[in-house]
Amino acid sequence: MSLLTASDIAAAAARIEGAALRTPLLQAPMLDARIGTPVLLKVEALQRTGSFKFRGAYNRLVQLNDVERKAGVVAFSSGNHAQGVAAAAQLLGIPATIVMPHDAPAIKVANTRSYGAEIVLYDRARESREEIAARLAAERGATLVPSFDDLHVMAGQGTAGLELMQQAAELGVDPGAVYVPAGGGGLIAGCSTAIKAARPATEIYAVEPAGFDDHRRSLAAGTRVGIEAGARSFCDALLAPEPGELTFAINRATLAGGLAVTDDEVARAIAFAFRNLKLVLEPGGAVALAAALAGKTRSDVPIVLVCSGGNVEAEIFADCISRYPDP
Amino acid sequence: MSLLTASDIAAAAARIEGAALRTPLLQAPMLDARIGTPVLLKVEALQRTGSFKFRGAYNRLVQLNDVERKAGVVAFSSGNHAQGVAAAAQLLGIPATIVMPHDAPAIKVANTRSYGAEIVLYDRARESREEIAARLAAERGATLVPSFDDLHVMAGQGTAGLELMQQAAELGVDPGAVYVPAGGGGLIAGCSTAIKAARPATEIYAVEPAGFDDHRRSLAAGTRVGIEAGARSFCDALLAPEPGELTFAINRATLAGGLAVTDDEVARAIAFAFRNLKLVLEPGGAVALAAALAGKTRSDVPIVLVCSGGNVEAEIFADCISRYPDP
Repeated sequence: MSLLTASDIAAAAARIEGAALRTPLLQAPMLDARIGTPVLLKVEALQRTGSFKFRGAYNRLVQLNDVERKAGVVAFSSGNHAQGVAAAAQLLGIPATIVMPHDAPAIKVANTRSYGAEIVLYDRARESREEIAARLAAERGATLVPSFDDLHVMAGQGTAGLELMQQAAELGVDPGAVYVPAGGGGLIAGCSTAIKAARPATEIYAVEPAGFDDHRRSLAAGTRVGIEAGARSFCDALLAPEPGELTFAINRATLAGGLAVTDDEVARAIAFAFRNLKLVLEPGGAVALAAALAGKTRSDVPIVLVCSGGNVEAEIFADCISRYPDP
Repeated sequence: MSLLTASDIAAAAARIEGAALRTPLLQAPMLDARIGTPVLLKVEALQRTGSFKFRGAYNRLVQLNDVERKAGVVAFSSGNHAQGVAAAAQLLGIPATIVMPHDAPAIKVANTRSYGAEIVLYDRARESREEIAARLAAERGATLVPSFDDLHVMAGQGTAGLELMQQAAELGVDPGAVYVPAGGGGLIAGCSTAIKAARPATEIYAVEPAGFDDHRRSLAAGTRVGIEAGARSFCDALLAPEPGELTFAINRATLAGGLAVTDDEVARAIAFAFRNLKLVLEPGGAVALAAALAGKTRSDVPIVLVCSGGNVEAEIFADCISRYPDP
C-alpha cells in the first residue's frame, strides 16, 4: 500500500481550495523555440506567499482540531516554508512561531513577520534549529509543522502537480516529462504521485543545485545518500542535506532520475525569466528552467517546468540580470 | 453607428486565437489586503513579445491579402508595437521594417531584431519617424501599420478586455472599475468597447504618467488636448503627444475619466510587483498598479488593473527595486 495516493492529493486540493491560488500554467513561445519542444511553466512563484509552500502548510494546519489550533504551531525554515506556515496560520487564526537562521534572506524574514508570526532567530553554525523548535513546541504544547517529511504537507504540495496535469489537458498538451526542484523532496513526492496517477508514462525528474544533488545520487544508488561535503550554492531553498525518509520512500518509486545545475546556469535562467518571461524567480525556483536552458531536459516530448518560488533579494536579482544581458 | 463594436472585438479574438496567448487574470491576496477591495491583474506582460501590442498587430496583419503580404509591412515605434509587429510578421511570413528611435530601450531593439525584422534607426530630435516610415512604405509598396489609430489594431488590443471580463466571471468577480494604461489610447479604446458591452455599469479609467495625462485632460475638456510642454517621464511606452483621433472618438464615450501617476509612484509599483507579485513590469505597464498603490483607485468595488507590458531595461529595473526595499 502506498504512503501517499492520488486520492490524498485530491482531498488536499478540496481542503485548500479558496485559500491557495490556482497558479497559471504558462505557455511561452520564445521558450518553445529555444528548447525545440513545447514547454509549459507551472508558476508557483505566483502562489500566495511567493512559493508552493503555502499549499502544504495550509493542508496541514486546516486539519488541526480546536485544542491544537489554540496551542499554536512551530516551524523551522530558511524562508519559504516559514512564509507558508505563517500565512496559513494567519488565515486560520492560529498562533505561529517560526525558527529562522539569522542569515536567512531579509525579504523572507520580513514577509514571515508580516503574516503575524513570531520569529525566533538562531545561529546556523552554533545552534540546532531542530532542538530549538522541539523545545518551543514542548513548552507550549504546540504542533511542529515539518517542511517536507510529513504526508499532509506532501499531499498539499502535490496539488500543484494535480493542477498542472488538469491545466495541460485544458491546453491540449500531453506532458512527456515534468521537471521539479528538489530540496527535501516534498514537492516532487506530492507532484509525482499526482502526475503518475494522471498519466503513468510521464517521466518526473528532480532538479537540484550541483553539490546538493542528493536526490540524483540517491536515485542512482537506490538508497538515501547525503550531500557532498563543503558544497555551496545560492539556491537557498534547496540546501537540504539529504532526501527525506518519507519523501524518498515515495520518490524512489515515482521518479525517472535527477539533474544538477550550476549556480551560473541558475543565474542565467533568472536573467532569461526576467527578460523573456517577465517572471521573478528565486534561485531555487529557477533550477528546472536552468536545466532546460542548459539543454539537460528532454526535447522530444512536451515538457513542464515547475517554477517553485520567487522570493529573491533585490541585490541577488539585480546581479543576475546585469551579469547576463543577452536575451 | 459606433466606430468599433463588441462584435469587431469578438471577430478579432477568433482571428488571433492560437497566435496570441490568453494571458492570466491573477488574484493577489496581499494586494487585496493593501487596497482594501478585491484586485485582479490582467497581465499583458505575459503576452507574446512582453506586451499587449502583439494582439493588435496580428489582427491587422492576418487580414492582409497575398499581394500585400508579399510587399511587407512598415511600422514606427519606440518599442512594444515594434516587437508586436515584428513577431506577428514573422509568424505570418511577412517581411517587416521597423523605424525606431536611436535611443529606444536596447532590449526592445534587440528583441525586435530577434523576430527577424529590419530595423531603421532615426534621430528623435532631427528626423520625423512618420516621414521615414511613409517614404519606406511608398518605395516598397508596403503597408504602414499604425500603433493605435487604426480600427483593426484597436479591435485586436480590445481582446484583452474581452478576456478579462470572461476570466473575472470565471472567478466569480464582478469588476466595478477597470484601470488601463493610455498612450495613444488604442488599448483602452478596444478594452472599453468590450468591457462596456459585457457590463455597461463598469467604469473604465485611463491611467497616464503625470505630464502626459492628455487623456485625463481631454476627457475633462471634451475635446483632444495635447501634452504639457517640457513633460518628462520614464514611462517610455506612454509618451504619445495627444490622444488619437479615432481612439478619442471612442474613448470620450466609454471612459469615466483619467488618472495621473508620478514616476516615483511608478517606480514604487515596479518594486512592489517584484517583491510581492513576482512579476516584471515596465514603467508604462505599471501605471495602473501605481495608481492603486497610491490610493487613487476605487476601493468600494472589485477592480481590475491592466498590466500592459514588461519590457524594461535591467538597469532601470534594478534601480527601482533597490530604491524601494520595503514590501
